[in-house]
Amino acid sequence: MEKWRSSHRFFKQSLSRRIVDPLSNPTNRLRSSDFCPGTGICRFNPYIERRSRTLWTCCYLRGYYIGKSLVQRKYYGSMASGLRKNPTFATLNLDDVNYFKGILGEKNVIQDEDRLATANVDWMHKYKGSSKLLLRPTCTEEVSQILKYCNSRRLAVVPQGGNTGLVGGSVPVFDEVVVNLGSMDKIISFDKVSGILVCEAGSILENLDAFLANEGFIMPLDLGAKGSCHIGGNVSTNAGGLRMIRYGSLHGNVLGLEAVLANGTVLDMLGTLRKDNTGYDLKQLFIGSEGSLGIITKVSILTPPRLFSTNLAFLACNDFFSCQKLLLEAKRKLGEVLSAFEFLDSQSMEMVLAHLDGTRNPLPSSLYRFYVLIETTGSDPSYDREKLEAFLLQSMEGGLICDGAVAQDTNQSSSFWHIREGLPEALSKAGTVYKYDLSLPVEKMYGLVEEMRLRLGQSAKVVGYGHLGDGNLHLNISTPEYDDSVLRKIEPFVYEWTSKHKGSISAEHGLGLMKANEIHYSKSPETVQLMASIKKLLDPNCILNPYKVLPQSVLH
Amino acid sequence: MEKWRSSHRFFKQSLSRRIVDPLSNPTNRLRSSDFCPGTGICRFNPYIERRSRTLWTCCYLRGYYIGKSLVQRKYYGSMASGLRKNPTFATLNLDDVNYFKGILGEKNVIQDEDRLATANVDWMHKYKGSSKLLLRPTCTEEVSQILKYCNSRRLAVVPQGGNTGLVGGSVPVFDEVVVNLGSMDKIISFDKVSGILVCEAGSILENLDAFLANEGFIMPLDLGAKGSCHIGGNVSTNAGGLRMIRYGSLHGNVLGLEAVLANGTVLDMLGTLRKDNTGYDLKQLFIGSEGSLGIITKVSILTPPRLFSTNLAFLACNDFFSCQKLLLEAKRKLGEVLSAFEFLDSQSMEMVLAHLDGTRNPLPSSLYRFYVLIETTGSDPSYDREKLEAFLLQSMEGGLICDGAVAQDTNQSSSFWHIREGLPEALSKAGTVYKYDLSLPVEKMYGLVEEMRLRLGQSAKVVGYGHLGDGNLHLNISTPEYDDSVLRKIEPFVYEWTSKHKGSISAEHGLGLMKANEIHYSKSPETVQLMASIKKLLDPNCILNPYKVLPQSVLH
Repeated sequence: MEKWRSSHRFFKQSLSRRIVDPLSNPTNRLRSSDFCPGTGICRFNPYIERRSRTLWTCCYLRGYYIGKSLVQRKYYGSMASGLRKNPTFATLNLDDVNYFKGILGEKNVIQDEDRLATANVDWMHKYKGSSKLLLRPTCTEEVSQILKYCNSRRLAVVPQGGNTGLVGGSVPVFDEVVVNLGSMDKIISFDKVSGILVCEAGSILENLDAFLANEGFIMPLDLGAKGSCHIGGNVSTNAGGLRMIRYGSLHGNVLGLEAVLANGTVLDMLGTLRKDNTGYDLKQLFIGSEGSLGIITKVSILTPPRLFSTNLAFLACNDFFSCQKLLLEAKRKLGEVLSAFEFLDSQSMEMVLAHLDGTRNPLPSSLYRFYVLIETTGSDPSYDREKLEAFLLQSMEGGLICDGAVAQDTNQSSSFWHIREGLPEALSKAGTVYKYDLSLPVEKMYGLVEEMRLRLGQSAKVVGYGHLGDGNLHLNISTPEYDDSVLRKIEPFVYEWTSKHKGSISAEHGLGLMKANEIHYSKSPETVQLMASIKKLLDPNCILNPYKVLPQSVLH
Repeated sequence: MEKWRSSHRFFKQSLSRRIVDPLSNPTNRLRSSDFCPGTGICRFNPYIERRSRTLWTCCYLRGYYIGKSLVQRKYYGSMASGLRKNPTFATLNLDDVNYFKGILGEKNVIQDEDRLATANVDWMHKYKGSSKLLLRPTCTEEVSQILKYCNSRRLAVVPQGGNTGLVGGSVPVFDEVVVNLGSMDKIISFDKVSGILVCEAGSILENLDAFLANEGFIMPLDLGAKGSCHIGGNVSTNAGGLRMIRYGSLHGNVLGLEAVLANGTVLDMLGTLRKDNTGYDLKQLFIGSEGSLGIITKVSILTPPRLFSTNLAFLACNDFFSCQKLLLEAKRKLGEVLSAFEFLDSQSMEMVLAHLDGTRNPLPSSLYRFYVLIETTGSDPSYDREKLEAFLLQSMEGGLICDGAVAQDTNQSSSFWHIREGLPEALSKAGTVYKYDLSLPVEKMYGLVEEMRLRLGQSAKVVGYGHLGDGNLHLNISTPEYDDSVLRKIEPFVYEWTSKHKGSISAEHGLGLMKANEIHYSKSPETVQLMASIKKLLDPNCILNPYKVLPQSVLH
């Protein structure tokens, strides 16, 4: 009771302080990964490379160089060991390389070992290929010529954006040619009346957001990897992220695409209209197809006006049912201003406090079972703040919240987000991480975390966090070192459990190489078969991003 | 100057009245079509048939009976005269009918002439087929059996929902078998935490909205035809409507579908998750494919919480540039509560005042060049009202608005909406209407109306109105009687103009029969070819909704 009153006082106290700085919008947040000093050279805008110092010491994002102090890690998740190279694919020869030099010029045909090493490995160092060639086209026509040639020669191709994926979708499995879109990063047009942005696919998400900030608009998606990821990759993987609860999915926000098919055909689907019902909406097929149906070269996207009043609350709940109820109430009472609803469990909090330097628990009086971040974004600072505070007081009186704090300024706001966004980094510092990105009905979601904890006992730490507002659980399991026996206890159990509860085994990360063979846990045989038919229709030689997304068994 | 002050006073006066009734939400609006007394028998819920008495005197929506006093109209827009029946299609025989009776039972195999007459004609009486058979399956398995049989016999099929389309997409062209989903109208599940509704495709939009109202949620789309249209038809045509500016398109809101392919295969894509990145998002192909790739049998859709504070302003602007600027400002300053931004020109207002009984101009002091309706929907009546009023005063002071009124109660709100929503009815009463549903960059949009007016001179009245917030123009041209020479002046000019300005020749109505051959005005040859390939992959005998969506030339 004493604790309750004390935390309640703290909460009330925090509510009574001054209005949050209107500039404390998400783009000003300090991210956990901001402290890496590596810089890149960028045609569009200089930017800070946002990855952890322990993983990357010196990166030229466009050159994909990794420095000498690269930490060696086990490629424990790679499926390549169980795969054989497709025997119909050709092997690169000197004539091929010369042909590409004729199209792209010497400097965009890269055979340098260090730069290839970067292109061959994902950022978690979990998947590693052995490509001998990295191509960097500068326009759609070059992409078309590359693919036309590769298709005629049956050279397999991996389209690559910022290479920030988590399922091995953007690196070669064997010796596929890597086609990186990083040189195609121009903004083509922006319509201030409608908020429609058209740009090349290699544009970095954060650069686009910075451009829009000057125009008074905002990208409808925001990811931890925004400093490196490309919009083409975001669209290819149907990225979700933090703003989805407010602005919806890319299937709704992407208005048009230009994509190049495996045979070099350029598909102009680059509409700039909010409504267009003329025939099948083919661009939708490319959203989330992970580069296996074509290479996206241009994107047209609807961007909402940037609203400058942002408020953030860090709250504690005693049980998961309260988190759910709080979500329902927040959607109803904060409906029009709610912009994020994230959760983490006490094990997540312990992980962050133990492994992320300088992290402070905003609610230090106790370790609570669950924490929730509620962010609102609106156009009226004083009203939005009052609205949030009224909602929080009501929720506290109703017993849904047992403690909480509202950020008073940009620094507090950043430190609250630091906890949620720093979780992947904290986990990677703690040892080996087995990462699962799952979509589940909200009321079932936490049951999996609890069952997994029982199943693994003392052998691993199980943490659960994610985008509660979207029903998206990030289940992460941590062991000091890689352990095959732990992995065998996790898989296929985690997929079976998800399937049994009508969830998705990939909410936002995609299937990539990691889960291509697990698709049947979330999709019926008939739909997988139709996917394979569409793949063969668009890419008959299956040269585009082979071994990914679909099981080999349905393609050959 | 005197006039300005006077209108300004009126406006100020209207702003100072009492807060609008929180119950004046869109579902309570009196629609222009509400006065038709015909009623239907509905398994789910009794409802009022919402069509004009002049068009329909006695309708049993599920039986598709049209009474004796049906007004005869010229089928001037029908393309059937230029089409030949596909010679590969079989003609229905007695064995076929008996087979269907074996599957569906006698009562759901309809050969009654009156009921067939209704199923053969669209509600505008513009397109008319000559089907001899109407089938009314009651479950997915029956739809599957019907299609499997039709495919094996090469019997062409027209899927039909509420038959409220405007482009001849839902009626037969020749003697296709009509498969009407009206008996499949069950609500399957509703998750109150996530707001995810799953229902059968024959559910009427208004019934779903009424069901959700009880749960505190709202359908993310709203159409004039909501009293008749089916959710399956909405999804098949990717319906837009009034709430799109707030809640986005069906490509973002539909979470899952069940669809039956031409060969009877049931595709279970009925996910109930907000995020699911496991393979290609096949359901997207069916959204907006107008029944030509499969018959949608079940729908899973994300529904937002119902917010009860609605405000509506009816405003006048001196020029189209002010309308555009007002839109931009409204998106920025009312961002989170803006729920509709509609416009009409002075010719539209004249049309409504002349032909819609009991209509009153809310701004009677003058006939202004443009009128704008701005609706806000939020969770706090007093704040939302203040916010809107502050915005309107600022816009008036800035010269964007020259006159205006804010609805003070439900009745005023209804009468404001009555003007915008009654336009189609007013136009139909005025004589023959040539209707075009176009998507254009907002700044270009009204140029087409002006050019068309110059082009047609005194021979026709040209009116422009629509969903300005979505860049969607409804261009309507009215003549006392049908006139071939007027049509020849309109088409193909209207399509050429739209194409030249990178617009879409169908924003939300689809292509149907009316515009199947015009697809090239909005889509490149490569994309049309790929659409044809996908059509042939999913429906090799092309039995589903033949002659619609795609030109025959690319299919055979």
